[in-house]
Amino acid sequence: MTITLYDCATAPSPRRARILLAEKAIAHETVQIDLRGGEQLGDAYRAINPLCTVPALRTEEGVVLTDNAAIIAWAEAVRPDPPLLGTTPLEKAEVASWHWRAEFEGLLAVAEALRNSSPAMAGRALPGPMGYEQIPALAERGLLRLRQFMAVLDGCLSNRAFVAGDRFSIADITAAVAVDFARIVKFRPDASEHAHLMRWREALSQRPSMTV
Amino acid sequence: MTITLYDCATAPSPRRARILLAEKAIAHETVQIDLRGGEQLGDAYRAINPLCTVPALRTEEGVVLTDNAAIIAWAEAVRPDPPLLGTTPLEKAEVASWHWRAEFEGLLAVAEALRNSSPAMAGRALPGPMGYEQIPALAERGLLRLRQFMAVLDGCLSNRAFVAGDRFSIADITAAVAVDFARIVKFRPDASEHAHLMRWREALSQRPSMTV
Repeated sequence: MTITLYDCATAPSPRRARILLAEKAIAHETVQIDLRGGEQLGDAYRAINPLCTVPALRTEEGVVLTDNAAIIAWAEAVRPDPPLLGTTPLEKAEVASWHWRAEFEGLLAVAEALRNSSPAMAGRALPGPMGYEQIPALAERGLLRLRQFMAVLDGCLSNRAFVAGDRFSIADITAAVAVDFARIVKFRPDASEHAHLMRWREALSQRPSMTV
Repeated sequence: MTITLYDCATAPSPRRARILLAEKAIAHETVQIDLRGGEQLGDAYRAINPLCTVPALRTEEGVVLTDNAAIIAWAEAVRPDPPLLGTTPLEKAEVASWHWRAEFEGLLAVAEALRNSSPAMAGRALPGPMGYEQIPALAERGLLRLRQFMAVLDGCLSNRAFVAGDRFSIADITAAVAVDFARIVKFRPDASEHAHLMRWREALSQRPSMTV
């Protein structure tokens, strides 16, 4: 069975999976899910992924992986080269830590800022099958947290080529997606405050995976 | 150098690391950090872990791992047996997915409910060096999300012995810590709604690691 990625070309979460699959050179078909039209909440997609989120990935065995956490763990196991989760115990720890921070201090902060303020997302403050009302104060806090994370990320990159050290890893993928996604809440890196971050992001642009 | 865990006996996050180290039989010393007294924000601990959080773990090489994500990845690499992150690609995916959900739908929901409502946590709505004000609506949403997660977890456990399948994993550790921590916001599993969850939690109590 062909590997299938359930994707949405305009959304940040499935972009993480697209970059991962490109870096791993894992061949797959893509099915676009129309998030703006609410296709993720319809019966057809719900039967594929009850979480009503993208990305989801159907493996060669026909098993559907329903989130990035699963897709990342699976991809590293089925295609160990190039390693994206580190190789030595200390590298693995450094990658895991920065990946976690990029997700929950970076991506989640942007999502909080966007989903709790955009009129188009009223009643959809969290992804998934349950509707949650917007919390304006959480949108504001998301912007504060995002600024804080970008300062931390810039500091991290002041003395290394990649987020978790001298090798490209999943932490770079998630951090880059967070930085790019942040434009939607009007955050852009600034040369006076984020010079290291901007140098890193510019260097990443040379990787073919970053354009998928 | 002896491995050192920076811990706080009453807090849920370091409990995750304690259970992990017990399951892996990784010998270590423990240093208690007085979270109620604010020791995590003092200069001495900040020099050890700039994130001002517990757990942190100092490895034999003297490297400090500053969060559970790092500690888990490191422990699985230095002590692969017993495996707690799965062995086959599909097992690894299942463990990663449920571990992620237990953390962000379970533990984070309890933390939102507690930290945004407890008078003792005013100005400390998020852990870490930055002070954030409480958001009462986020406390309420945390309780809703927590209820939803417990229903999902009960459904997951309706046809399996452990959260990620037929083998104990990191997903059980994080889910059990979330279930136990939820008492602090007055959530307790109910025999009519959470029979599978209660059977699983009761069975876990037989493991020596659950009492550390």
